[in-house]
Amino acid sequence: MKIAVCQSNPIIGDLKGNSEKILEGYRRACGDGADLVIFSELFLCGYPPLDLVEKMEFRTAVIKSAESIAKQTVNVGLIFGTITEDFEDNVGTGVYNSAVLCYDGKIQFIQNKTLIPNYDVFDEVRYFESAKNVSVHEFRGEKLGISVCEDIWNDADYWKHRRYTTDPVQCLVDNGASVLINISASPYAYGKRKERYNMLSVLTRNDKKPLIYVCCVGAQTDLIFDGGSMCLNSEGKLEKLGKNFEEDYFIYDLEEKYSEITDIESNFGEEVLKALVMGVKDYARKTGFKKILVGLSGGIDSALVVYIAVQALGPENVHVIMMPSKYSSSGSIADSEKLISKLGISSENVSIQPVVDKTLEMLSESFAGLKENITEENIQSRIRGLYLMALSNKHGYLVCTTGNKSEIATGYATLYGDMCGALAVIGDVYKTQVYKIANYINRDTEIIPFEIINKVPSAELRPNQTDQDSLPEYEILDKVLKMYLEEQMEFDEISRNIGNVELVNKVLRLVDLNEFKRKQSSPVLRVSTKAFGYGRRYPIVQGWRR
Amino acid sequence: MKIAVCQSNPIIGDLKGNSEKILEGYRRACGDGADLVIFSELFLCGYPPLDLVEKMEFRTAVIKSAESIAKQTVNVGLIFGTITEDFEDNVGTGVYNSAVLCYDGKIQFIQNKTLIPNYDVFDEVRYFESAKNVSVHEFRGEKLGISVCEDIWNDADYWKHRRYTTDPVQCLVDNGASVLINISASPYAYGKRKERYNMLSVLTRNDKKPLIYVCCVGAQTDLIFDGGSMCLNSEGKLEKLGKNFEEDYFIYDLEEKYSEITDIESNFGEEVLKALVMGVKDYARKTGFKKILVGLSGGIDSALVVYIAVQALGPENVHVIMMPSKYSSSGSIADSEKLISKLGISSENVSIQPVVDKTLEMLSESFAGLKENITEENIQSRIRGLYLMALSNKHGYLVCTTGNKSEIATGYATLYGDMCGALAVIGDVYKTQVYKIANYINRDTEIIPFEIINKVPSAELRPNQTDQDSLPEYEILDKVLKMYLEEQMEFDEISRNIGNVELVNKVLRLVDLNEFKRKQSSPVLRVSTKAFGYGRRYPIVQGWRR
Repeated sequence: MKIAVCQSNPIIGDLKGNSEKILEGYRRACGDGADLVIFSELFLCGYPPLDLVEKMEFRTAVIKSAESIAKQTVNVGLIFGTITEDFEDNVGTGVYNSAVLCYDGKIQFIQNKTLIPNYDVFDEVRYFESAKNVSVHEFRGEKLGISVCEDIWNDADYWKHRRYTTDPVQCLVDNGASVLINISASPYAYGKRKERYNMLSVLTRNDKKPLIYVCCVGAQTDLIFDGGSMCLNSEGKLEKLGKNFEEDYFIYDLEEKYSEITDIESNFGEEVLKALVMGVKDYARKTGFKKILVGLSGGIDSALVVYIAVQALGPENVHVIMMPSKYSSSGSIADSEKLISKLGISSENVSIQPVVDKTLEMLSESFAGLKENITEENIQSRIRGLYLMALSNKHGYLVCTTGNKSEIATGYATLYGDMCGALAVIGDVYKTQVYKIANYINRDTEIIPFEIINKVPSAELRPNQTDQDSLPEYEILDKVLKMYLEEQMEFDEISRNIGNVELVNKVLRLVDLNEFKRKQSSPVLRVSTKAFGYGRRYPIVQGWRR
Repeated sequence: MKIAVCQSNPIIGDLKGNSEKILEGYRRACGDGADLVIFSELFLCGYPPLDLVEKMEFRTAVIKSAESIAKQTVNVGLIFGTITEDFEDNVGTGVYNSAVLCYDGKIQFIQNKTLIPNYDVFDEVRYFESAKNVSVHEFRGEKLGISVCEDIWNDADYWKHRRYTTDPVQCLVDNGASVLINISASPYAYGKRKERYNMLSVLTRNDKKPLIYVCCVGAQTDLIFDGGSMCLNSEGKLEKLGKNFEEDYFIYDLEEKYSEITDIESNFGEEVLKALVMGVKDYARKTGFKKILVGLSGGIDSALVVYIAVQALGPENVHVIMMPSKYSSSGSIADSEKLISKLGISSENVSIQPVVDKTLEMLSESFAGLKENITEENIQSRIRGLYLMALSNKHGYLVCTTGNKSEIATGYATLYGDMCGALAVIGDVYKTQVYKIANYINRDTEIIPFEIINKVPSAELRPNQTDQDSLPEYEILDKVLKMYLEEQMEFDEISRNIGNVELVNKVLRLVDLNEFKRKQSSPVLRVSTKAFGYGRRYPIVQGWRR
């Protein structure tokens, strides 16, 4: 059996565009002599469709589109993910996250998803019911064992602790499946592709069945899907691997022999850079923005964001504004200009100082008798935000924010100031990781000026300020944050690890106290196992103290 | 049996404070001769604790607190809601949302929640597993049938369409319960209290059992819990009703006869006003803010928000700033001053015009050759935001935003401008409802000046602007929005209802397109069945077109 893997990039809700992609891929595969053509989970409506699923008119349109696609099939099989409904028992939502198999002009078989994930960024119990049956479907001499994403993530041989009591893939094997198919939409985090491979390799080896694991690719607001579809043989060996961070199409022949692929995931800099570039590119493309605007400070964060923007849309579509104040070092402008010329982008330079001065003058009565404090710093940051948004409104730029994860975690950012913008490009990248990526970019030649990489981090909002006036050294801070956020370690454990109870307590308190800022942050491109945003939900008003 | 109902206001995560409240109530009830004392769902940790539940250190601290409370009990029963753990099967989270019954120094009985809600603002499947057993517990001659919140919302006699296949309260009745107890945390929306009563009345009448329904009270960021605990006899008659929007404590004697209560929920103005006042009061109190700042425009929205702030914290703790521009009408200042004097609050007046002019001067090169557009309007709004935040930073004010639901729905608001602030007080109140509440406030005497109520709504960001330049008449707009948002009606149905396809299409498109703004909005106090925020989740980047 020849199976065509269609690793494509849907737009959520764009039923017309996604249908066309399915039909295009199907026709191409028919021309290539495929027996079966496979698209990823909920491909027809895009993943995750969120509360669109609650709209009957949306579900009806999805189901109509699926039927219309099925009508156009010939004797070659087509599997894709879609929403289906079954209100037979009149209890619950009656809505399913399904894989449909079509041929000969109609939907011939539906396998609903059994394991409904409801953790981190997943809210599927909100919409979908669990499959009532799991069964195989015979097609062209193979017994297809079809499952949907999470269904394959509960293998008793792989997991020490399991989320679910049932194992639908085991059911498929027990029911005589000769080939396993999983359609998936698995959000990327660095390391995730290797984990998928490890898990699937154990599963296929133990079940002695080949597996076609079809992933989607593309960014959906904050979530990044990296592609990397996998075909493993019945010995657990990886024989085909879809491209990373781009669309792909290939044929996998169950009868053919392939050499084993072992190169699965690259280094952090390369992987995360690709992920972020795709994140920015897709946000712009899918919302219709043609040009990006970034405020360039002379620091490493904005330099990296500008580089990513250039990779995403090309230098001709990236504009930067430098917005010096009286606290800006002369280096800030010179270094920024060096980067601008290296990247070949357009720029302008508008001082914020006259507006800062006018604002302070107007508020002088309100501030009378009170000392300078964070207020004056925030005013500078907010006037920069005002400039950025004014240019965006006037010229139609997409504004990208430049805050990194270390800053967003600790609240070292100004609401309505440097947090202004549609997309937090490096909001899931710690400061130390920002350097890692910059060094990767500079691996062959200096692209991000060394002056920018080597300078002491500073917000330049008061004389001689450095980030470390307020925060621990980034090397330590990021370690603490990673243990707290991604590794879900407890305070005691982190303190023991770091050997400084007071420092750890201070950092964790900063994280806990700044939920109100993050509530109002733009979406953060997710490249770790725990990003700020949809997958992390803490009360804003709360009194938890350790 | 004498049962003490403790309708209290917890702070999420404040285990010490919440424990003290439980013990205080328990001691008082013991003194009053109660047999059984009851607190609401998850009272010990506060509801909803969200991802705090995922922290082992948090769960451990909660469980320890529960045990410490239990140790202090005598022979009087105490029921309260808390987290419990049971990892016996090593599958799933092993964490439960439980009612614990303590007496004689220990936890004697635990009833876990069976029905785990996962819709609208509820994400409980993310944290909690479903109870494996439902059983009654005999105590002082009564067979207590204890359930937790959602458990009682699946009665086959009441609901045409049920969410769940099981009915734990029916199980309790079948197991011989002589009295039903439900501990609850049911977020308020106007009309909800009557719905609770109707449902519980049918249930008790059919099951022929008395019910003690214990609710929490208080606001938790955006969610408002109204109290209104209910005791119904076995004929479905309401015999006791807890106070609305405040803490309460009372004894309900199963052996006593009470007269029936029929006055359950008041008019919209009174109810929603009380809800919003509590929302603001609790946000300030629980976060430690002492004073509120509001930008006063001369319009009805900011007038209402200031009135609410005064009710919440007293006139001495409310400060307003008027921020006129060259487009502000002379009426705006005069009307604002009338309100200020009626409410007895402090104020200041700082023009934004010089800062607007300076900003436009600085950006003149960037804007060269381009026409005036929304940019210049947004600059005004954002400079007002800059002023508000500067005063907040300098003086420690809590800034309340003044946007109503009609504006937030249609995106008729400026990000980082009038959307600046910690809490969107009337963000779940339509413009037409704003007038309703204002008229309720003025029912006896003019408090909100009639000039403010009677003027034509305008953002005053360009000459002779009115809201209706951009939006349909509010009477129609709000009807469309309500059908779309709260009533979940489909486009076709709304169009038929309104009789104007084009208008409805325009409004629905505005709602769909402005998800990006709402992502960055402050929390919105929820007083309807579908508020913007946590309970409504739409993709920001999406291509769904009708």
